[in-house]
Amino acid sequence: MYKILNKVNTPEDVKKLNIEQLNELAIDIREGLFNRLTKVGGHFGPNFGIVEAEIAMHYVFSSPIDKFVFDVSHQSYTHKILTGRKKGYIEDEHFSEDSGYTNPEESEHDLFNIGHTSTSISLATGLAKARDLKGLKENVVALIGDGSLSGGEALEELNVAGSELNSNLIIIVNDNQQSISETHGGIYKSLRDLRKSNGKSENNIFKTFGLDYIYEKNGNDIESMINVLKKVKDIDHPIVVHINTQKGKGYKLAEQDKESWHWTMPFDRETGKSKFDFSGIESYTKLAYEFIMKKAKEDKDFLVLTPNMPTSMGLNPKAREELGNQFVDVGIAEEQAVAMASGAAKEGAHPLVITNMTFMQRTYDQISHDVCINNQPVTFLLNYTSLSGLTDVTHLGIYGLAMFTNIPNLVVLAPSSKSEFNNMLEWSTSQRNHPVMILMPGNEVTDRESDANFDELDKYKVEKEGKEIAVIALGDFYQRGEKLLQDIKDKLNIEATLINPRFASAVDKELLNSLLENHKIVLTLEDGILSGGFGEKIASFYGSKDMKVLNYGLEKKFYDRYNPEELIKEVGMDNNSIINDITEIM
Amino acid sequence: MYKILNKVNTPEDVKKLNIEQLNELAIDIREGLFNRLTKVGGHFGPNFGIVEAEIAMHYVFSSPIDKFVFDVSHQSYTHKILTGRKKGYIEDEHFSEDSGYTNPEESEHDLFNIGHTSTSISLATGLAKARDLKGLKENVVALIGDGSLSGGEALEELNVAGSELNSNLIIIVNDNQQSISETHGGIYKSLRDLRKSNGKSENNIFKTFGLDYIYEKNGNDIESMINVLKKVKDIDHPIVVHINTQKGKGYKLAEQDKESWHWTMPFDRETGKSKFDFSGIESYTKLAYEFIMKKAKEDKDFLVLTPNMPTSMGLNPKAREELGNQFVDVGIAEEQAVAMASGAAKEGAHPLVITNMTFMQRTYDQISHDVCINNQPVTFLLNYTSLSGLTDVTHLGIYGLAMFTNIPNLVVLAPSSKSEFNNMLEWSTSQRNHPVMILMPGNEVTDRESDANFDELDKYKVEKEGKEIAVIALGDFYQRGEKLLQDIKDKLNIEATLINPRFASAVDKELLNSLLENHKIVLTLEDGILSGGFGEKIASFYGSKDMKVLNYGLEKKFYDRYNPEELIKEVGMDNNSIINDITEIM
Repeated sequence: MYKILNKVNTPEDVKKLNIEQLNELAIDIREGLFNRLTKVGGHFGPNFGIVEAEIAMHYVFSSPIDKFVFDVSHQSYTHKILTGRKKGYIEDEHFSEDSGYTNPEESEHDLFNIGHTSTSISLATGLAKARDLKGLKENVVALIGDGSLSGGEALEELNVAGSELNSNLIIIVNDNQQSISETHGGIYKSLRDLRKSNGKSENNIFKTFGLDYIYEKNGNDIESMINVLKKVKDIDHPIVVHINTQKGKGYKLAEQDKESWHWTMPFDRETGKSKFDFSGIESYTKLAYEFIMKKAKEDKDFLVLTPNMPTSMGLNPKAREELGNQFVDVGIAEEQAVAMASGAAKEGAHPLVITNMTFMQRTYDQISHDVCINNQPVTFLLNYTSLSGLTDVTHLGIYGLAMFTNIPNLVVLAPSSKSEFNNMLEWSTSQRNHPVMILMPGNEVTDRESDANFDELDKYKVEKEGKEIAVIALGDFYQRGEKLLQDIKDKLNIEATLINPRFASAVDKELLNSLLENHKIVLTLEDGILSGGFGEKIASFYGSKDMKVLNYGLEKKFYDRYNPEELIKEVGMDNNSIINDITEIM
Repeated sequence: MYKILNKVNTPEDVKKLNIEQLNELAIDIREGLFNRLTKVGGHFGPNFGIVEAEIAMHYVFSSPIDKFVFDVSHQSYTHKILTGRKKGYIEDEHFSEDSGYTNPEESEHDLFNIGHTSTSISLATGLAKARDLKGLKENVVALIGDGSLSGGEALEELNVAGSELNSNLIIIVNDNQQSISETHGGIYKSLRDLRKSNGKSENNIFKTFGLDYIYEKNGNDIESMINVLKKVKDIDHPIVVHINTQKGKGYKLAEQDKESWHWTMPFDRETGKSKFDFSGIESYTKLAYEFIMKKAKEDKDFLVLTPNMPTSMGLNPKAREELGNQFVDVGIAEEQAVAMASGAAKEGAHPLVITNMTFMQRTYDQISHDVCINNQPVTFLLNYTSLSGLTDVTHLGIYGLAMFTNIPNLVVLAPSSKSEFNNMLEWSTSQRNHPVMILMPGNEVTDRESDANFDELDKYKVEKEGKEIAVIALGDFYQRGEKLLQDIKDKLNIEATLINPRFASAVDKELLNSLLENHKIVLTLEDGILSGGFGEKIASFYGSKDMKVLNYGLEKKFYDRYNPEELIKEVGMDNNSIINDITEIM
C-alpha cells in the first residue's frame, strides 16, 4: 500500500519519478482519496478526475515559486497530497488537519482560501500583473472546470486575460463534461465541438475571447499531460490548455452517475451506499422538495430557477423532468438566475430561486437593483443559512442576516416550525406584492401552529405571554428560546414572554412599545453574526427608552470548521451564560 | 421647431409616418435632447447615438405589448420622448417629471427601474420565459451596448440565451465602439472583426455562445434599422441584432471626444463648455487624483484597478497614460477588478480599486470571499458614498455602510477632513495587513489635524471633550456634528463631547465604556441608512448599560431624486429635531 506515495513528501520528490512510477503514484493517490472519502466524505468526482493532471502540474512546474490557483479549490486533494499533506488522506487520525479546500494556513503551496466558483482566473491575472510590476518571471497557472466557466466572473476573466495581459498566464480548463448537475449554456456546445474536433473547431470560445489555445484529449494520462504542460511552460502570453478528463475516474459508480458523486457523504466502497440513512428522517430540504412538486402541479405560473443547485432542495433528475418547463437551471450563473426571476415575475410568473445562502452573496446587486428596487415578487429559498450548516469558512450561512435584511423592500422570513415553513412558502409564491427571502432552518423539524397569511407585514408573534423578561428568538433559534424560557423559570422564577418575530427584516414597533409596560429586559437570539443583523435593530429601537436589551449572536469574524455547540458557548449564547447576564443586570 | 414631434404623442403616431417624416422626427428629437441636456445635463453620447434605432424599434414593434428592456436605461431618452413624455425634453418646466432612466411609475412602456449595467438580457430572458409559460406570443427586445457586454452578467445571459431558451428573444447589441471610457476585453476584437467583415467574420462571440446573429452596419439609418428589425420580428428563437452606431451622433464635439461626452453637466451648445466651472474648487475627487499620481511615482508596486470608472477619480486619458503599467482598466467587470486586486496584493502589489459605491455592490461576494477571507491588503476607494451624491434610486451611495461594514476583516474608513483623507489613503496603500475601504466624503473639503497612522485599528478619536452628551459623528457628517455641538451649547447650555470615529466598521468598546462615567446620552450621526449601519452597533453595545442612545440616519427605503437637506429634515436629523429629542429624554 502506498508504495510510491510513501516516498513522496514534496513536489521535488515527484520530479524524480519516471512515468511508470508516476502512474503508480496515481494509483496510490486514488487509494488515499478512497481512504479519506469513504470515511469523512467530500468532493469525490472532481478529485478522482484530476489526479493525473495535478501530478503533471507538480512534475512540470515548481510550486510555490510557480503559482497554482485552484478554482473553488474543491479539486485540490491531489495537490495537497503532493505538498506535504498526505497524512490527511492516508492516516485516519490526521483527517481533521486538512480542510477540503486550499488553505494558506496549511501550506505555502496554497495561495488562497477559496470555495466559491469562477474566481481563479481573476486571482491569477492579479498574481501575473503584480509579478510583471516586480519584474519576476514565474509561471501563473489557474485550474478551472466543473461548470465554473458559466459564471459571469469566469467570462469576465477570459475577456480581460484575452486582451489586457501580455505576459505569462496558463489557464487549464478541466473539461469533464459536467457541472454540479449537468452543464447549461451555449459555451458548452463550443467545448463539445472542440473535443469532437480534437481542438480544431472554429467554434472556439477561448479564441473568440482573444486567447491562445491548445487542446489535450488525454487529460487522464500523465505523460500526455506532462507533454502539453511542458509546451506552455514559461510562455510569454496567456494561453488556455483545454484538457479532456473523466469526472470520478477510477470508481465505476462515480463515472456513471456524475451528479450524485460530485460530493459524497461517507460511504461503503463495495456498494457505494452512504453510511448514513436519512430516508426516515424529516428535514426542511424534504419539505421544500415536497412543496415545490405540489405547487408546480397546482400553479402553472410557478417557476423554479436555480444556478446549478437543484440538489439544494433535493430536486433530482427525475423531479426536474417532472417539473418540465417550470424548471430552469441556468448553470452556475447566480446573477442571471436572480435577474431572470425578476423579469419572469414582471410578466406574471411566480418565480422561486433556490440555492445555498453562501452562493447568493454573489447576487447582492441583482437582488437590490433588479428585484427590490422594482419590487418584483420573487421568492428566494435558501439552504444552509445556519451556523449548524456547512462550517467551512468559505461556505458559511451566518452572514445572511447582515447581508440581506438591510435591503429595502425585501421581506426576509425566518420560519420556526414545519407549518410555518410551509405556510411562508405558500404565501410568498402566491402573493404579488413583495420580494421574499426564506431562510431554511438549520435545526431538526418540529411543528407548531402557524398563521397561514403574512400579508400584514412585519408583525412579530407573541407565542407565550409573560412579564419582566421578553425573549425574541428568531427562526430556527425559536426552540433555543423555548428552552431558555424554561431555564429562566427554573432558575430565576420568572415567567418570561416568548416572541417569534418571523420577519427577520423588520422591527415591529407596536409590539416592542407594548413590551415597555411590564418588561425590563429584552433578549434577542439570532442564528448569525450580530453585526448588521437582527438584534441590533431592536437595541437601536429601545436606545432612548427604559429597557435593557441583550443581543445574542456570533461575532463579526470568519469562523472555520467549528463545532456548533462549542461555538455557542464560546460567544456566551448558551443558557447558563445568558442567565448569568440577566442576573448581573437585575 | 418640433414640426413632426409636435404631432407624435404615442408609438402609434410613429407608425403612421413615412421615412422622410421619420428622418425629420430624428432631427426634432435631437433638438429636444439638446434642449434638455444643455440645461440639466445627463447621458449625452448614448442618447444621441441611438435616436434612429429607437425610432425604428417603435415603428416595427408594438410597445407595451412587445416588451423593451433597456440595459442601464441611460439611453432611453428617445424611447421616452416617443411614449408620451416629450414635454420632459422640449418644455423646460417639465424637465423634473422625467428621470434619466426607465421608470415604470412614469409609463407602462418602461418595465424596470434600471441604472446598473449588464442586466437587460437576464431580465428579458425572464420576461420571455414567463411569456412562454402563459402561452403568449409578444416580442421581447433587449437593447444593450456602451461596454455593458464585458460585465459578467451580460456574458452569463448570452450563454443562457444561447442554449436554454427556445423562443422569441431579440437582443440588439448597440456597438458604438466605446464604453464609458474606451472598451477593454477580447470580445471587442470579435465585434471589430464583425464590423470589418460586415458581420461575416468567423470570430463571432455571439455564435460561439450558441446564438443566431444578424449584422446591420447602418445603425444610424432609420430605414436600414426598420428593415433589419422587420426581419427578426416574431422570430421563434433568440437572435442577436448587432448594429453599428456612432456614439454622440449629431454633435461634432461628442463624436470626437466620446469619453467626455458620455455624460455631461449643463453646457453651452456653441462652445461645448460646461456651465459650471469647478476649476478653482477643491474636491475630494481632485485630492484622490493628486494622491494617485503622486503615489504611483513613489511606489512602483502601487497599482490602480478600475471597472471602467477612471473618471470616478478624475483619471483622464493623459493621467492614465502617465500611470502606464500601474493602471489597469478591466472594462465594466467589477468582479474581475476586485478578485484581480486580491491576486495582485498576494504577490506584493499595493492595489487600489476605484469606482462609485453603487457599482461596488456587484462585488459583495468577491470582497468577502476573495479579499477579506484571505485578508489581502486591497484598498477600495469609493466615490458617491453620501446622501448628497447621486440621487437617482439606482445610483444611491447610502447603502454602503450597511453593505460593507459587516464583512469581517474589512476596515471601513470614513474620513472627515482633507488631511485625514490623505493620511488614510497613504496608510492603507502602504500597509500589508488589512483590506481597507475608504468612503469619499460627499461634502465640501475642510481641513483639520489628523493622525497619520491607523495601525492601531478601531480607535475612535475624541476631538472635543465635554460631558453629559456625546456626539459620534461619522465621516462627512463630522461637520454636522460640530454644528450640533454649537447648537447644544447655545440652546441647552451643555458642553458636549464630539467624537470622530474614523473606523466605520468598528465599535471602540474602551472609549464607549469610558463615556459611561460622565455622559448620559450618546448620539450617532451617519450618512446612510440606519439599518445595518454604524449607529445600531453603538446602541447594541450600550443595550444593557445606563446610557441613552439616539441613532440618526436614513430609513431603510429606496429614495429617488430627493433634495438632501429636505431629506435630512424628513428623517428628523436636522439640529432642531435632534435638540427636541434630547430635551424630551432629559
